[in-house]
Amino acid sequence: MPNDVALSILWHIAPVDTLAGEHTRAYLDTLTKPPGSLGQLETLAIQLSEISGNPKLTVTPPSVMVFAADHGVAEEGVSAFPQSVTAQMVANFANGGAAINVFARQIGARIEVIDVGVATPLDLPSVTRAKVRAGTANIKISGAMSRNEALAAIEVGVAAVERAQQAGAKSIIVGEMGIANTTASSAMLAVLTDVPVAQVVGAGTGITSAQQAHKVAVIEHAIDARRANPQDPLDVLTKLGGLEIAAMTGAYLASAAHRLPAIVDGFIATVAALTACRLCPDVRGYLVFGHQSEEPGHATALEALDAKPLLNLGMRLGEGSGAALAYPLLQSAAAMLNEMATFADAGISDKTGP
Amino acid sequence: MPNDVALSILWHIAPVDTLAGEHTRAYLDTLTKPPGSLGQLETLAIQLSEISGNPKLTVTPPSVMVFAADHGVAEEGVSAFPQSVTAQMVANFANGGAAINVFARQIGARIEVIDVGVATPLDLPSVTRAKVRAGTANIKISGAMSRNEALAAIEVGVAAVERAQQAGAKSIIVGEMGIANTTASSAMLAVLTDVPVAQVVGAGTGITSAQQAHKVAVIEHAIDARRANPQDPLDVLTKLGGLEIAAMTGAYLASAAHRLPAIVDGFIATVAALTACRLCPDVRGYLVFGHQSEEPGHATALEALDAKPLLNLGMRLGEGSGAALAYPLLQSAAAMLNEMATFADAGISDKTGP
Repeated sequence: MPNDVALSILWHIAPVDTLAGEHTRAYLDTLTKPPGSLGQLETLAIQLSEISGNPKLTVTPPSVMVFAADHGVAEEGVSAFPQSVTAQMVANFANGGAAINVFARQIGARIEVIDVGVATPLDLPSVTRAKVRAGTANIKISGAMSRNEALAAIEVGVAAVERAQQAGAKSIIVGEMGIANTTASSAMLAVLTDVPVAQVVGAGTGITSAQQAHKVAVIEHAIDARRANPQDPLDVLTKLGGLEIAAMTGAYLASAAHRLPAIVDGFIATVAALTACRLCPDVRGYLVFGHQSEEPGHATALEALDAKPLLNLGMRLGEGSGAALAYPLLQSAAAMLNEMATFADAGISDKTGP
Repeated sequence: MPNDVALSILWHIAPVDTLAGEHTRAYLDTLTKPPGSLGQLETLAIQLSEISGNPKLTVTPPSVMVFAADHGVAEEGVSAFPQSVTAQMVANFANGGAAINVFARQIGARIEVIDVGVATPLDLPSVTRAKVRAGTANIKISGAMSRNEALAAIEVGVAAVERAQQAGAKSIIVGEMGIANTTASSAMLAVLTDVPVAQVVGAGTGITSAQQAHKVAVIEHAIDARRANPQDPLDVLTKLGGLEIAAMTGAYLASAAHRLPAIVDGFIATVAALTACRLCPDVRGYLVFGHQSEEPGHATALEALDAKPLLNLGMRLGEGSGAALAYPLLQSAAAMLNEMATFADAGISDKTGP
């Protein structure tokens, strides 16, 4: 149910097609393999059928979008890297040198990098200009942004998916870049799930344990001071979140509205996905979880969504990298369903009776 | 150390290049990502460098080879499917309709199907004829094959890798088909690792728990009767193994000799890999483990090799399917190392000091 009239995208989200999923479930058992022997790949094929409502699956081409923004709370010394690295990494994305560029090329994905709130002015022709504000405010001192700014950032994400879809995308990979965004995500997650801050905070890009204790204290202070309403996901996003987290939330909403599978990356992406699902529970059916991050809060966020990721490679990079690595498994699930022979086609004997 | 003069391939296996691996380990920390943040993908890049000894990694194109053979012990009713399914599935491979065909096409792999011991005479032009004998003997009643037959089957695997290498393969995926081959593999594994049979036996392609108890009893009987020497892997292979398991063993030996990464599939493949490593411990460095199978003995076999697979998707199909699904991660590891920008290239700030 839409809970904010400003978010018109919510009216366009329908539940996935469970009947198409049931049809695929039955068809999978006619293919030349012992029933269920392709495990999670079969579950994935069923989900992809539910998403498209079509017995023939198409997930190619994928489209990658990376949202970048800064966080005022970086001035509290919660990250291993200085704030300037956000803009420097955006330039690296623009030059094609980051991990997500490499993995996007491998899977033949279009990639769009979107400045939704980098603090530094950027002049990079290949980066989409959609700056809602030049970074959030420091959440220890005030709300991250206004409710209207959060809505505008969500719309940036919606528009990015619509561009991807118009360019022919059949699946969506959403990534982020933003120094200190594990701090914002941890704060949001602790409020949304009522889990203690210390349980969801990790080392981010690589802080020491003393810095980690400081990060926990900053987040606890921010949560106490901001008094976000856990029943109102937009309020949590506005008071404690980030502009790229809002845009990612919008991207998941739009993926669902356009019936496109969205591959969710790691910790920050999953917090945005949880926010989207709290805004509209029907979004959940459109989300495929790419990988299990090393960041401790990720397990909490996944549990809140009852999600089991495809990969578990001890990664903690972000950018959409884990989601891009998982994408070939979506191709495999689709190809299995579209191309394998049935026992009847192949003239193969059934199981022997007991 | 070669322990059988008939296996000349053993003389051609050298240890992996750990110095090249150390070079890659250091270089990875100069790339534009927090150190270690790509987790197991970084470990994989280091291993691929050790294998090739080359700072530029090339794993494309991969080559898939599927060895098929029958098992006399099938007559004891240890499988959910009748023995005729081995030949029927070989025909399905020849027609391109099996899961491994679909996944091989996805990754652009050459695929070769090799009859190393199918019981039924086959007349399929696209299947390589290399039948050593028409299936093994029933291991409950006699040894599976002679030592010379085991050596001949190993050579079939060696020759298949040499054909793949001559066709340009830069990585090797080895699969199998053989009704009742989890029975032979479980028997071999129990002897090689001195683990109780009941711990390594699972449902295979889908037997009931009563059938599973029967399978354990058959294997225990065979182990007691055959008295294979656990210190002599070729004796274990000869008395309890299978022709496709011997060919797979040869394929791993030849991959190591030609310094090609071999992606190991599930339970049966890992037992063959363990056999190859017992014949020559230097083989271990050339093996990449594709996936964790649902078959319970797989965990035991992986532990014996100190191996952590890339994927864990609850699969139990065989054919090389799990190894083929893991292959894109080798491509990703290679691309990461070959294509990512360094911090210096990209002009990105270092971590802030403590």
